[in-house]
Amino acid sequence: MPRYKMTIEYDGTNFVGWQRQKSGLSIQQVLEEALEKFSHTQTLIYGAGRTDAGVHAYAQVAHFDIPYIMDAFKMQAAFNALVRPYPIGVLKIEPVSDDFHARFSAKKRSYVYIILNRRTPAVLDFNRVWQEGRHLDEKIMQKAALLLLGKHDFSTFRDSECQAKSPIKTLDEFTISRRGDYIFCFVKAKSFLHHQVRNMVGSLSLVGMGKWSVKDFQQAFLANDRTRGGPTAPAQGLYFQSVSYED
Amino acid sequence: MPRYKMTIEYDGTNFVGWQRQKSGLSIQQVLEEALEKFSHTQTLIYGAGRTDAGVHAYAQVAHFDIPYIMDAFKMQAAFNALVRPYPIGVLKIEPVSDDFHARFSAKKRSYVYIILNRRTPAVLDFNRVWQEGRHLDEKIMQKAALLLLGKHDFSTFRDSECQAKSPIKTLDEFTISRRGDYIFCFVKAKSFLHHQVRNMVGSLSLVGMGKWSVKDFQQAFLANDRTRGGPTAPAQGLYFQSVSYED
Repeated sequence: MPRYKMTIEYDGTNFVGWQRQKSGLSIQQVLEEALEKFSHTQTLIYGAGRTDAGVHAYAQVAHFDIPYIMDAFKMQAAFNALVRPYPIGVLKIEPVSDDFHARFSAKKRSYVYIILNRRTPAVLDFNRVWQEGRHLDEKIMQKAALLLLGKHDFSTFRDSECQAKSPIKTLDEFTISRRGDYIFCFVKAKSFLHHQVRNMVGSLSLVGMGKWSVKDFQQAFLANDRTRGGPTAPAQGLYFQSVSYED
Repeated sequence: MPRYKMTIEYDGTNFVGWQRQKSGLSIQQVLEEALEKFSHTQTLIYGAGRTDAGVHAYAQVAHFDIPYIMDAFKMQAAFNALVRPYPIGVLKIEPVSDDFHARFSAKKRSYVYIILNRRTPAVLDFNRVWQEGRHLDEKIMQKAALLLLGKHDFSTFRDSECQAKSPIKTLDEFTISRRGDYIFCFVKAKSFLHHQVRNMVGSLSLVGMGKWSVKDFQQAFLANDRTRGGPTAPAQGLYFQSVSYED
């Protein structure tokens, strides 16, 4: 069957997350229902990353199979017309070979976590950033974040409901920079544990506030124990940024 | 009476604009009502720029007088608590001398107009950009925009309801740049005619699409006639960016 790769932007605020769940509406469900309407086939859409409720995507990637060839441009227009009431946009559709798998072929996943570091509540970025009024020193946060690079046991930043077989992951990038009141945390890895990014950012925020030293952070990390970690940063600051399928 | 300068961010989507109007809720009204609640005085708040319905602000500036001295930090917190249901945030309050006037002391006003130049509807930027699916050549738009720099009659870009005495304005900056699918139009002047920025951007978009040559644009501009100009770009792409009170 012809296989298609799709790239999707969404505002995760009012969804239960990417993946279908009985508890409410997911991005996956909206897209699968749109696909069924215009293609008259019931098909699963597989995403590269299962974003949580409230987490956004600049460029989620997914794939699906349909029993006949359709023009990618027309499919994109059909998707965008049918998902219209929802904050979901299909940026691109392209035919791919049938050994392409959005999730299993992914070589690197990139996320960005955005903190609005000011006392005034978020206005233009409401539901799109973590607004934190206490001053955060992004330079000391960057210093602590560098300890996470490479292959490690990330149990301290792993949610208790994480289904991964192993807590060992390899982190390729953790760059923290400030522009005005905004702090951007860029992370990249082949894959992440459940809540790993939000838990890393939450612990780093304690360092940024001066509640933890870099050494405290390091000890929490090396303890391989979630109860030693800091809080989970809120979902609304997190964006699935991109997926790479190249080595 | 002590005078205070305030800096305000807002999402203009659901307002009739900055200025009080009988037809609906304005940003000015929300702020004046909040001020009345915590200061127990009825006072006008004067804005630096009268943004239209749907136009946003990163940093609108305004001033007001109250009959006693109040801590600026506490006032800011009171404003932000009281405007809470609305997408308005007070970024800063500072005491100023009583000859400061948010509107009349302003030396330069900066706006940015944001175009999302892609076929997919705006998602994360819904109501925050002008989404235009036809490709725009930002380099040729920049070339045409340079013709507007300096002191000119801007009648071609002046709304019929404009109350300014003269159509002569001096434009100090018009910079157009692209980042991915986003085109940013930065403009700066002491002051603008009603709808001037949106009318300039609307006409430039015709150049960007290839419907007008730079020469067509120049001839429309020199005609000093609104009926020769292009369409008015939609409000949701426009942001009041900053005001300068320095020479």
